[in-house]
Amino acid sequence: MTIGIVGIGLMGGSFAKALKKYRLSSKILGYDHNLEHQKTAINLGLVDEICDLDTLKKCDLIVLSIPVDGIIAFSKELDDIGENTTIMDFGSTKELIVKNIPSNIRANFVAAHPMTGTEKFGPLAAIDGLYENKIVVLCDTHENTSYHLGKVLNIFNTIEMKIIQMDAKEHDIHACYMSHLPHAVSYALANTVMSHENPNEIITLAAGGFRDMSRIAKSSPNMWCDIFRQNRQNLLDSLNIYESKLALLKEMLQNEDYENIHRFMAKANTLHDILK
Amino acid sequence: MTIGIVGIGLMGGSFAKALKKYRLSSKILGYDHNLEHQKTAINLGLVDEICDLDTLKKCDLIVLSIPVDGIIAFSKELDDIGENTTIMDFGSTKELIVKNIPSNIRANFVAAHPMTGTEKFGPLAAIDGLYENKIVVLCDTHENTSYHLGKVLNIFNTIEMKIIQMDAKEHDIHACYMSHLPHAVSYALANTVMSHENPNEIITLAAGGFRDMSRIAKSSPNMWCDIFRQNRQNLLDSLNIYESKLALLKEMLQNEDYENIHRFMAKANTLHDILK
Repeated sequence: MTIGIVGIGLMGGSFAKALKKYRLSSKILGYDHNLEHQKTAINLGLVDEICDLDTLKKCDLIVLSIPVDGIIAFSKELDDIGENTTIMDFGSTKELIVKNIPSNIRANFVAAHPMTGTEKFGPLAAIDGLYENKIVVLCDTHENTSYHLGKVLNIFNTIEMKIIQMDAKEHDIHACYMSHLPHAVSYALANTVMSHENPNEIITLAAGGFRDMSRIAKSSPNMWCDIFRQNRQNLLDSLNIYESKLALLKEMLQNEDYENIHRFMAKANTLHDILK
Repeated sequence: MTIGIVGIGLMGGSFAKALKKYRLSSKILGYDHNLEHQKTAINLGLVDEICDLDTLKKCDLIVLSIPVDGIIAFSKELDDIGENTTIMDFGSTKELIVKNIPSNIRANFVAAHPMTGTEKFGPLAAIDGLYENKIVVLCDTHENTSYHLGKVLNIFNTIEMKIIQMDAKEHDIHACYMSHLPHAVSYALANTVMSHENPNEIITLAAGGFRDMSRIAKSSPNMWCDIFRQNRQNLLDSLNIYESKLALLKEMLQNEDYENIHRFMAKANTLHDILK
């Protein structure tokens, strides 16, 4: 099976490593508009060759691991692929993507969201084991033929991912709470510190808690602007709820209502009864 | 040197482990109002003996690793220690503590804040290496005699901590940004998810980002209520700034002003140029 990876960064590059480890591909082709990334991907041995669009279209599987707006735009370029070519995307949003796939390749296009990553990006960020034992969400798979879905399921099963199937609309709400809202929260926390008159001095005291809370504020603005755009309404809704929790905490603090602050904290603790 | 540890939990227990590793103490005594913790601390070999208040007062060094309100209350019990007995506390706030130490033992009392910890608590949470290569802040040490300060400096140097000295007022602002505000943010994020109609289902998609962002929401309400009480004004001030950053992000999202959202994210990225 020849597999073409569009966007050879953290996600695409690490996926290529997984494909090689499990011998899932006879040849891995890379497609990337960034010449530096092309060169690095070849030098690191992530892909066997860099290919052009025509060659890409002849692959058995095309993986779109590029920012979510790019996925929609690029799918238009692929609307003349053969019927046995499967496409899948790794976008963090799903509803707008599935709505915008050209109808003639909708059956070929499996919408996937691997729930894994790091704050780093580019081919140098590619690592072994990024996908193993992680969750991948497949959305609206009733739109796919069993041929295309089966090909994708086989790959994810082989690289030892846990597969969940979900409606695209539902996915976008869940992904908002588990990933998009936390990114917004982390970016805002980083900017709070950076707006202090002397962030350098303050940061001297950074320990594990702050490092964890600010890690994802290092994430790529290009990638995350697209995600915020595509999941805008869910993000606004969850930000409203989040702001109300913060406002409640602030009000209790203003009123020195420590009994209820204790309850607020104890309630937050219960998250960890269900987050294993 | 006999060292008495008041509160044999994560911090006190891990400190006992460090003292043993570096052979800093001829005998480690434990003092804890919780009978279960006493038993566990003995069984785990964290302390050599459990002691009463009179014996505690005769130690060469007394370490208060209890919640910050408890530090102030307990310091009143220690106002008749001998002139060669040193006390130090591990509280996360410093201004109210140094203000409330009985004046006759103020010179003996070294105010310290080791910038380390985990979200766990109790003697079973005690681990090796919690203090090594971490920062410890000592506050208002001009109030200590060189005898008492020297004893504390020697211990922190020996267990390989990085010592920073700072004004207590300044410490509380810095610790607020680096620790207290992030805890408030994490508790609020956890409660946002827990207030969803089906947190169990949403949490299925939890990956590294959410786990990091919610980890410290597992922290002890007893400990953190005290910290929020003692650092209330700084926390309110930083929450105001944080809320304004979130409100700005929300406004840009409402206005679909992605150019400025990109700038907001890029600004947040710069934190990591100074956070090594």
